[in-house]
Amino acid sequence: TPTSSGKSYSNRGMTLEEDINAANTYYVSRDMAIVHKKPTPVQIVNVDYPKRSAAVIKEAYFKQASTTDYNGVYKGYHVDFEAKETKNKTSFPLSNMHEHQITHMEQVMKQKGLSFIIVRFAPLGETFLLESKYLIDYWYKQQDGGRKSIPYSIVKEKAYLIPFHFQARVDYLKAVDKVLAKLEEDVNV
Amino acid sequence: TPTSSGKSYSNRGMTLEEDINAANTYYVSRDMAIVHKKPTPVQIVNVDYPKRSAAVIKEAYFKQASTTDYNGVYKGYHVDFEAKETKNKTSFPLSNMHEHQITHMEQVMKQKGLSFIIVRFAPLGETFLLESKYLIDYWYKQQDGGRKSIPYSIVKEKAYLIPFHFQARVDYLKAVDKVLAKLEEDVNV
Ligand SMILES: [Mg+2]
Ligand SMILES: [Mg+2]
Repeated sequence: TPTSSGKSYSNRGMTLEEDINAANTYYVSRDMAIVHKKPTPVQIVNVDYPKRSAAVIKEAYFKQASTTDYNGVYKGYHVDFEAKETKNKTSFPLSNMHEHQITHMEQVMKQKGLSFIIVRFAPLGETFLLESKYLIDYWYKQQDGGRKSIPYSIVKEKAYLIPFHFQARVDYLKAVDKVLAKLEEDVNV
Repeated sequence: TPTSSGKSYSNRGMTLEEDINAANTYYVSRDMAIVHKKPTPVQIVNVDYPKRSAAVIKEAYFKQASTTDYNGVYKGYHVDFEAKETKNKTSFPLSNMHEHQITHMEQVMKQKGLSFIIVRFAPLGETFLLESKYLIDYWYKQQDGGRKSIPYSIVKEKAYLIPFHFQARVDYLKAVDKVLAKLEEDVNV
């Protein structure tokens, strides 16, 4: 059933994070992978413990996250990624990324984890898995005065389109499988 | 320098979690592993945005965690663990564990992640890495009317003692290496 907003079936008002959470729930229910979103880090300052009811946090502050949004394990592979949605059609602006996320991605890669971003071009209704190595390349080029975004054409060339799946929504493991197939290929050359 | 409390050097007032956090900081500084503690999950209900200062969370509630405390990646291996401290000397009480943690451990094992607990017998000043398979074995035996704890002697037999390290405090990667060596051995038999 199409919605009144006229959005495509795969994109009717669900945010990328909601879609990924749905995928993770689906994957764990099928023993396909175990991936969780990290809770928002909060500095708790003051807690009330009323009798006969749940503790209430009365004062707390948002802390800077030191990692990416999601991580977990899939067929023995450590997977770690950040989800990013852009309203842009022609490029992915690097202003979407934070320095600490880049640092974390580099650390994960050093330990041979699979590090990537899931990027959605909202107006196009397209969602991609882009390996962090490409992102990091653009990140450092930008610091050397290079462009402030990754062109859509490059994403389309380097990244893997994530197919829509009725239950998993963004069926990103399909794209992870392509990354793994490529890794195997490179090893066997 | 020994402290007035007479505790041993390796255990002078630091909690197990503080020691593990120190280990993780040390490991990442040396590019040895990248492991983080998961933030406490909190349901945020009400946030104040004062002018010219940080947002203040005015009402929030603790949520049940759905995973274990720590996870990360080490030499391509996904590691996932829970830290538990007991005041007991003769056994590790299973009441320290929660059902959802056991479920999570099983899920991680199915995906070929390394799943374990780091258990400290505080009065003995000894800290062990115990693979989840042993813990889970006792967990289900308990549900069948078995004993409510894992004897210290079994922990000593099945688990790996974690050595103290001046900077890393609990140098648990040393114990992980033993788990990995055993895995290799089992494959090569
Ligand atoms: Mg994000
Ligand atoms: Mg714990």
